[in-house]
This record gives sequence, structure tokens and C-alpha cells, in this order.
Amino acid sequence: MGKLVREKNRRFSNQLFSQENMERVLKKRLPILSWLPSYNKGTCLADAIAGITVGLTVVPQSMAYAAIVGLSPEYGLYASYLGCFVYVILGSCRQVTIGPTAIMGLLTFEACGSGFPECAVLCGFYSGIFELVVACLQLGWVVSLISEPVTIGFTNAAAVTIILSQVKSFLGLSGDKASGFLGYSKSLYDNISSFTIADTAMGILSFAVLLLLKSLPDLKSHSRKYSRAVNGCTWLVSLARNIIVVVSTSLIAFAWYDPPFQVTGEVQGGFPPIGLPHFSLPVRNNITTGNSTKAGDLEIKMGFSETFSFIGNGPIIIALISILQNVAISKSFGHGQAIDATQEMLALGVSNTLGGFFSAIPISGSFSRSAVNDASGVKTPGGGFYTGALVLLSLAFLTPSFYYIPKASLAAVIICAVMFMIEYKSLISMWQISRMDFMASIMTFCCCLLLGMEYGILIGVAISLSAVIIKSLRPHLKYELKQEIKADIQYLYIEPSIGGHFPSVEYIRSSINDLVLQYTCVNYIVIDFHLWTSWDYTSAGAFVALKEGLKKMDNFVIFTKCSPGWIQALKSAGLKDTEYVLDSGLEEGLSNLINNARALADLNRTVIDEESSS
Amino acid sequence: MGKLVREKNRRFSNQLFSQENMERVLKKRLPILSWLPSYNKGTCLADAIAGITVGLTVVPQSMAYAAIVGLSPEYGLYASYLGCFVYVILGSCRQVTIGPTAIMGLLTFEACGSGFPECAVLCGFYSGIFELVVACLQLGWVVSLISEPVTIGFTNAAAVTIILSQVKSFLGLSGDKASGFLGYSKSLYDNISSFTIADTAMGILSFAVLLLLKSLPDLKSHSRKYSRAVNGCTWLVSLARNIIVVVSTSLIAFAWYDPPFQVTGEVQGGFPPIGLPHFSLPVRNNITTGNSTKAGDLEIKMGFSETFSFIGNGPIIIALISILQNVAISKSFGHGQAIDATQEMLALGVSNTLGGFFSAIPISGSFSRSAVNDASGVKTPGGGFYTGALVLLSLAFLTPSFYYIPKASLAAVIICAVMFMIEYKSLISMWQISRMDFMASIMTFCCCLLLGMEYGILIGVAISLSAVIIKSLRPHLKYELKQEIKADIQYLYIEPSIGGHFPSVEYIRSSINDLVLQYTCVNYIVIDFHLWTSWDYTSAGAFVALKEGLKKMDNFVIFTKCSPGWIQALKSAGLKDTEYVLDSGLEEGLSNLINNARALADLNRTVIDEESSS
Repeated sequence: MGKLVREKNRRFSNQLFSQENMERVLKKRLPILSWLPSYNKGTCLADAIAGITVGLTVVPQSMAYAAIVGLSPEYGLYASYLGCFVYVILGSCRQVTIGPTAIMGLLTFEACGSGFPECAVLCGFYSGIFELVVACLQLGWVVSLISEPVTIGFTNAAAVTIILSQVKSFLGLSGDKASGFLGYSKSLYDNISSFTIADTAMGILSFAVLLLLKSLPDLKSHSRKYSRAVNGCTWLVSLARNIIVVVSTSLIAFAWYDPPFQVTGEVQGGFPPIGLPHFSLPVRNNITTGNSTKAGDLEIKMGFSETFSFIGNGPIIIALISILQNVAISKSFGHGQAIDATQEMLALGVSNTLGGFFSAIPISGSFSRSAVNDASGVKTPGGGFYTGALVLLSLAFLTPSFYYIPKASLAAVIICAVMFMIEYKSLISMWQISRMDFMASIMTFCCCLLLGMEYGILIGVAISLSAVIIKSLRPHLKYELKQEIKADIQYLYIEPSIGGHFPSVEYIRSSINDLVLQYTCVNYIVIDFHLWTSWDYTSAGAFVALKEGLKKMDNFVIFTKCSPGWIQALKSAGLKDTEYVLDSGLEEGLSNLINNARALADLNRTVIDEESSS
Repeated sequence: MGKLVREKNRRFSNQLFSQENMERVLKKRLPILSWLPSYNKGTCLADAIAGITVGLTVVPQSMAYAAIVGLSPEYGLYASYLGCFVYVILGSCRQVTIGPTAIMGLLTFEACGSGFPECAVLCGFYSGIFELVVACLQLGWVVSLISEPVTIGFTNAAAVTIILSQVKSFLGLSGDKASGFLGYSKSLYDNISSFTIADTAMGILSFAVLLLLKSLPDLKSHSRKYSRAVNGCTWLVSLARNIIVVVSTSLIAFAWYDPPFQVTGEVQGGFPPIGLPHFSLPVRNNITTGNSTKAGDLEIKMGFSETFSFIGNGPIIIALISILQNVAISKSFGHGQAIDATQEMLALGVSNTLGGFFSAIPISGSFSRSAVNDASGVKTPGGGFYTGALVLLSLAFLTPSFYYIPKASLAAVIICAVMFMIEYKSLISMWQISRMDFMASIMTFCCCLLLGMEYGILIGVAISLSAVIIKSLRPHLKYELKQEIKADIQYLYIEPSIGGHFPSVEYIRSSINDLVLQYTCVNYIVIDFHLWTSWDYTSAGAFVALKEGLKKMDNFVIFTKCSPGWIQALKSAGLKDTEYVLDSGLEEGLSNLINNARALADLNRTVIDEESSS
């Protein structure tokens, strides 16, 4: 036995380290090796166009999303280039583009509170480590436990929360920092009278322009002449709507000299500070997460483990949601490409872990920007290079001008991006397809809003998994009354479709029992297990008990088409009459078995008669 | 639509209140109506013999089990007759006999602490109400979530805890009251030196006699002459071993005048106090459950809601476990009888609810006594009448003699009954059949001991359900390369076995995708859904996305043998090309569809070519 295992291990390691295998693994884990050798002018040009178009979207979006975490705009940019470069090397799906997203912003804010860059960066670092662990342990299937309805409920709740969080800047309200749906609602209710006309006007103007530019491609001219040029132009303007709005409103603020609306104010210029992430966070005077309010005027630092417990399960939630998003994006846009979830996790993990050294907040694949990338005709993951370069250029030259960006227009960028994330149409088809799914989605939505994002997801997952288990309790049972020609007897042929596991096996067992009680004329029951691929202790025990129980009523149960593992399991569970177990579909062998069974039954009956007469 | 529903409702209510149906329901819910009309001298005699034999077991056992809850012996008897009478009327399985059991005792003790009869009775009442609710809402399937390995782990842990709890009386140790595995172990460790020789001797003597009498039938004479009479005699002595030991040790104590070992002492004589259960429990000075220690010398009463929260989830756990036990017993002994779980819950619920008015502690089916009942040849549930009558007689005439029952011999009765509940052999076959089940069982065992019974069960259920979900993530996918003769093309025929639900649908989708990438020569994929009986929003969406995705790669996906509901779900999820969905197995229709698909593909290609050339 030990020798066999050793031999197997040796063969396995030989196979593992053979040259072809190494090359295959290398190409799989470094996808750049597959496409770089055949990179040419054509693909380069296509990638450059797509990459720069994405860059025009990511620069204003990332600055806005930094506001969701309560950070100044440059933190958005800090997080926007590194992921692009990493994804060029490690990315497996050319359409995916990674960077800060609204949902990542919200989750980071929930973990850290407002305006705490050290914490946000550390969160990103830990989530990166967690992603790498998940990738190495091949645990990516965990995200398949988050069903579509739960994702939709979560996304809707995130969108609503993010929009509410931006209303303050949008209307120029005063008031304390708040957090969570309830906090934002209360703060909004308390401070709604403090809105300023200038901020509101700026917000509404930006919002209206954004909506108009977004719908521009739908209003395209119908004349065929010039149509291509005009369409291309409107398409580009529409894609660059965020930067157009941010730049033009900043210009207004700059020209105004002392604008009546709120602007971003002084931000740190140039490149981000590079170094180890802060494993010991400073204790903050006014932590808005509501977890604790610690006193201390000096910068007192928490210890490593205190910091770790302060951040809590935030990085795990961030990592799971980012993996979910990346996998979802590659499924949506990777038209039939094979999706390597492990590789996506690896790319994300490396990006986020490295991000910890470059002051980057947590990042993940962005659905909207990946759509832009796809629509711009990207050819390889190399497009990310141009996006990253554009972001670095902005950081080098544009930070001084961030002073003038009106807060209201950044809020408008966020609201306009996030409001289209709300999926109400899916809820209608969900209602039509499965009421349980509809309920799971609504419950996730409500719990995310009222209890917090992480609890909402957990409750949603629990509801949808319960639904699956409840549905699996009543598996389908095919049966048929058949005639054995040779022995000329009738037998009941039963074929359990699934249910090799405990919650449903009881139902199968009692259904078979009921069937036997119903067909009193039939004494032979053949159970066909060819659809059973797995089993457990409960199911093995239940079928042995069924066989023994029916035998006492003079019914003979024959198991057929059993896999060797299932036969072994039945034997371990105490099956005695193994001659009635057939490991392959020997239909003709049945008659012999039935004859044997009949002879045995007669014999038994004779013995019993003898005993009782003695 | 509304009319149809009304018509359906009318027909349904007509059917519901028709005479035959009423009679059928009445017979189903009052099983006594089925067997009483044909009750005759023969069945009466058999039932009397069996009933009295069970009575000889239940009297000493119930007195001993009262000690597990820390109550005096009469409380065991109070709970032993009512259930028997109720089961005569409502019971569906003749072998089942209900009354106090060791596990019920342990769970009641965990909820109430030691020596708190009002609480134990209230617990029983609430669990009865809960059982009735479960029966009325047809929620009996909930117990099928408790798998066999979890039950075994739980039973083993209960047995170990109960045995430890009795070592104190068995050895005559001094020391405070303790609770739980850890508490008992610590108390045992602290007080082991205080053991008294007299108690220990009495305990060991009783234990040895019990073991000897139990194994008596195995030592039966091999000579055929007299064998029947001798066998019958040894069998009866073996069954009545508990009462023999209790009576003879009581006689020793009585004869000794001032025995050196501990005896039960003064107990309340006669029939139990009858009245409403105490919905407001007195606050106790020294509650040993560890939940709280409340001060108060006077008998201060808690309010109704305070009492309710004091008892906590105890009654729910008691109800679930009692249902589980009753169902398990009827499965074991009801040789092929149809098991009506709802009826079992009803009988239990009525017994426990009524018990609340008759000072009865929680009861459930007893495995050991049901085995005695079965072996004694009971013919109808009427046997319970004789058991109940015997218990009432003991209550009427025997309570004064309870004074002399040595505590150590009651402990020996418990230990001897409970030690055979420990199933170590099952663990071996569990290991052989499924490592995951083995782990679930061991984890349940450890958590029951270390965290408490209810947490142990919950954790065990969580582990075993997770195992099922994890196993279902990789469903079996049958596929075949087939040849369509008429159109002369190859197509891939794929038959997903199960996985209409979200955790596994992703695997199916990506497997199909991989298959298509593998068979590049094949452009037509036929997916056969005849094994799909249920689905959800995620699965519908995934298959629509699969179809759309593969279409972009010029692969045509045809869904066949879909049920109407699945077609509706696919349409709701946004399926457009409904002509490629076949609701029944029209194999010959495939060629037409393939031809159409091919024509359409050619058409599309022409349009695209035209557009790009224009």
C-alpha cells in the first residue's frame, strides 16, 4: 500500500516538474507569455486606444470613489495605476480592468470609517493576502455560494447607500459625519434645511450634463452620410463625460476666484508615499464606524493585534466581493473564453498586496470600465499599460489642479455612475422564476441597509442555501412495473434520480416503502443506482435498513448498477445479502437472482414452518 | 384566472369535507379507530403481556431518569403514565412506548438546572406546544436535517455526560452540584477522594447484577428439552432486571435500619399535583445552569416573559430531539409499516402539553423500552394502557417504599442503560463510508461535551449540511458526440444530471464551455434537461448567458426535453431564440432546427459581410 502511494507520488512529482508541464503552468500563471510574442502594431494601436479611453474614465471616477471612503481624490489615483500594470502581466481576460470601485469604497469605509487612509491601505493589503491564500488553496468556489439574487440585493443596497452618502456633498449640507444607511438617512433628515443653493446648482448641473452626455449615443443621426464620424465622436464624448464634467466645473471654480460652492481644497501633490503598510494604526479621536470612540490627543498607536481586530472581517468581505466581481466581469465579457478564476484571484491578490506598499486603497474589477474597455476594442490585457501610464501622468502633473474640483460635481459623478447599478428589472424576472430567490434578494437588500453590508451578504447566503437544501429534500423518483420474461414475474423498477445525501434520503426511503405497500402484488423490488455519484453514512444506512425492513415483509430488494464505492459503503453499513447487489447493468442476471431469492424464501419459509410445528 | 382558482378551491373544499375523506382523516389522526373495532381476546392478551413487561422496565428506569434532572423519583413516574394513555389513542406505531428518557432528562437539566420541578414541567409543556405547532405546520422534515452521524455524535456525548453525572451518586461523593461535561469532570477530580466504601460497594454490586442479568439470555441452555420454558424465564428475568435490582437493594436498605449508604429519602406520596403549569417560576438562590445566580431569600417570582427567556431555547431542542427519537424508533421497529411523522409529532405534542397539567417532565419515545415492547410481541398500541395502569398502581401504593431506594443503585440503573447507547462501532463504518461524516460526528461529540448539547447539535448540522453543499458543487455531466443522419452533422449531446440550483450551476456552465472549446469541430450543442426538476434565477440566467456567449462564437445551443416551467424560467431570464427550445424529446425535430440554425447563421454572416464591405 505504502509502496503504491510512494510510486504514485513519484510519478506525480515527475509529471509536475517535467518541462512541458512547467511551461504550461508558467503560461497559465503568467498569461502575458501567451500574447506578448505575437504582439504587433495592430494590437498595440487597438490596445492604446482602448487603454486611453479607459484612462479618461478611471481618472475622474477614481477621484470620486476616494470620496466614498472619505479620502481626498489623489488616493483614488494612487490605487488606479498599479492594478493596471499587474493585470497586464497576470490578467487572463483582456476586457477586465481593475481599480477603485464604488462598492470597494463603501466596504472600505464600513471597515475603517471616514478619512483614515492608513487603515484603508492596510485593509487593501490584508485583503490582497487573503486573495492570495484563496487562490493558492483553490478556494475560489466559495464565491459560487453567493447566488445571483444575493449579489443583486447586495449591489442594490450598496448603490442606495452610496447615493445617500453623496447627497451631503451634492446639496452642500453641513452636519457631522455619518455612516450606514440609517446614519445617512438621519443626518439627511436633520440637516436637509442647511442646503446651499450654489452647491445644489453645481450638483444638479453636473448631474444633468452627465445624464445628457451618457444618452448622447442613443440620439445619433440617422443619415448614413457622415454617420460613422459623428457616431464615433458622440461615442467618445459620451465615454469621456466624467472627465469633461470634472474639468469644466473645476475651470468654473478656478475662474470664479472665490467660488460659493465647496471645492476639494489642498491635496498632497506628486507620487504616493511608498513603504510598508502601517501595521499599527494610530488611535483616532473620532472614529465614525461607531465601533468605539477612543480618547487621545496625541497620536497613540494601537498594537499589531489590536489593529488587526479593529479592522475585523473587513478585508475578508472586501476580498470575497472583489473576487466575485472579477469572476462576474470575466464571465460577462469573456465571450466563451475559458475563465480561470484562480488566475483572477492571483492577479487581484498581487495587485492588492503590492498596493499596500504604494498607498493604494482596495481595488477590484470595475464593471463599467471593463464595458468601456470591451467597447473600445481592446485586443490584449496590454491595454491596461496605457491606462496606468495615463493615471501616472495625471498624478505627476494634475494634482495641484485638484484644489478646484467642486465637491458637488464629484458627488454627481458618483451618483450618476452608481444609480445605473440598481437592478429593478431583474427583480421582476426573479419573481417570475422563483419566489424564494426574490425573497432572498429582498432580504439581502434590507439586511445590507439595516444591519450592514457583511451581515446582509451572510444572511442572503444563508437564505439561498436553505432554499437549495429545502428544494433538494424532495428528489424525483422514477418507477415502473416491469415484467421479467424468463422467470415470469413482475418487479418494481425504481430509479432514484439524486439524493445520495442525508437530507433527502429519508424521503426516498419512505417513498419506496409507500410504493411497496401500494403494489402489494409485487414481491421483487429492483433499485437502480446508476445516477448516484456520491453518498454518505446516512444514505448507506437507510438503504440497508430499507432492504432489511422489506425482507421481513417477504419483499426482496435487489440493488443494481451500483458503483464499486457504493457497494463498499453498503457493506460497511452492514449489508449482508451481497448477492443481491449488482455492480453493472446485468439485466439478464436479474432472473437468476430472482430465482435464487425465491428459492431462498421458500427455504426460509420451510424452516420457519418446521420450527413452529416442532 | 380568479375563476379557475375559485373553482379549484371549491372542488378542494368539497373534497376535503366529503364523508369518505373525513373518515379517512379521522382514522389517520385517531389511529385507535383502525384497530379497536377488531380488538379481540388474543390481541388483548398479547398487549397485556407486553404492556406489563414494559411497565416493569419503565418504573425503575423513570425513577432513575428523574435523578438526571435532579428530581426525586416520583417525578419520573408522574411522567410515565400519561404518555402511554395518549399514545393508545393517537399512536401510529404499535412498538413505540413513550415516557421519560435519559436524553430528555439531560436536556431538561441543561435548560433548568438541578432540582427545579416547576421549570422541568414548564419545559415539557412548552416543548409540547412546539411539537403541536410543528405537527400542524407539517414541519416534520426539519428533523431530516439532523443526519445520522450528528445523531450518533450527540447520543454518544449525552451518554458520556449522563454517566459522568451519575458517578457522584455511584461513589457517594460529596461536593457541590455541577453541570455539563466539564463541570462534572472538575467536580469528580476535586472530590474523588471523598468516595465512601458502602455507596461504591452498593453501586458496583447493582451494576454487576444488572450486567449479569442483561447477558442472561445469551447464556441460554443448548438442550432442546425445556429450552422454551427456560429461555422464556431467563428472558423475563433479564427484562425485569432493573426492577429486580431496585427492589432487592431497597429491601437491603430497609432491613439494615440505618444503612451506611445514601438512600433516596422522603418523597411526596400519592398522585401528582394537577393544575396549570407554573408560567411564573420562582427565582432560585442557587441556579446551577450557570446562566445567572440571582439573590433572594424569599420566593420571588419571575414574570411570564422573564420565565420564558430563562428557559430559553430548551423546549425547542427538547421538542426536536424527541421528534427525532420517535421517528427513529418507528423507522427501526415499524417493519415496513408506513411511518406518519406528523402523527408521531401530534401524539408527542398532546402528551407533553397535557403533561404540563399533570406535573410531568418532558417525555419522548424510548428506544430501549420500545425494543422490549417489540420483543414482548405487542400487537396494537393498546399495550400502552397496561403500562400506564402499572405505573399508576406503583404511584398509588409504592411511593412510601421509595424512601429506601439506594442512590447508588439508581445510578447503576442509569449507567447500565446509558452505556449501551454509546456507538463506537458505527464510527468505524462511518470512517469507511465517508470521512466527512466521521468528522461531523466527532465534531458534534466534542462540541456537545465542551459547549453544551444544543450548540453541539447546531454545529453538527451546519457541518453536515456544508458537506452536502460542497459535494453538490461538482455534479455529474454526461456528454456524447452524436451524429445527426438527416442533416449529416455532428453535435455534442450534453445531459446535466442535477444542479438546477446556484451553487453547482456555475460548474456546469464552465464545464460545458470547456467542452465546447475542446471540441472545436462541433458547432451544435444539444443540452438535455429531462433530469431537471427544479431551478432558480441563477441557473436560468447562467444558461441564457451560456447560449448567448456561445452564439457569439458561432456555436448553436439547443435546449431539449425542457419542462414547461423551465422554458418559462429561461424566457423570464431573457432567452430570445425560443425556437431552439424543445419541450419534449422530438429527436427528429432536431435536424430541422439545425438546418434552420445553419440557414440563420449563413444569413447573419451575409449581413455582417455586407455591412463591413459597405
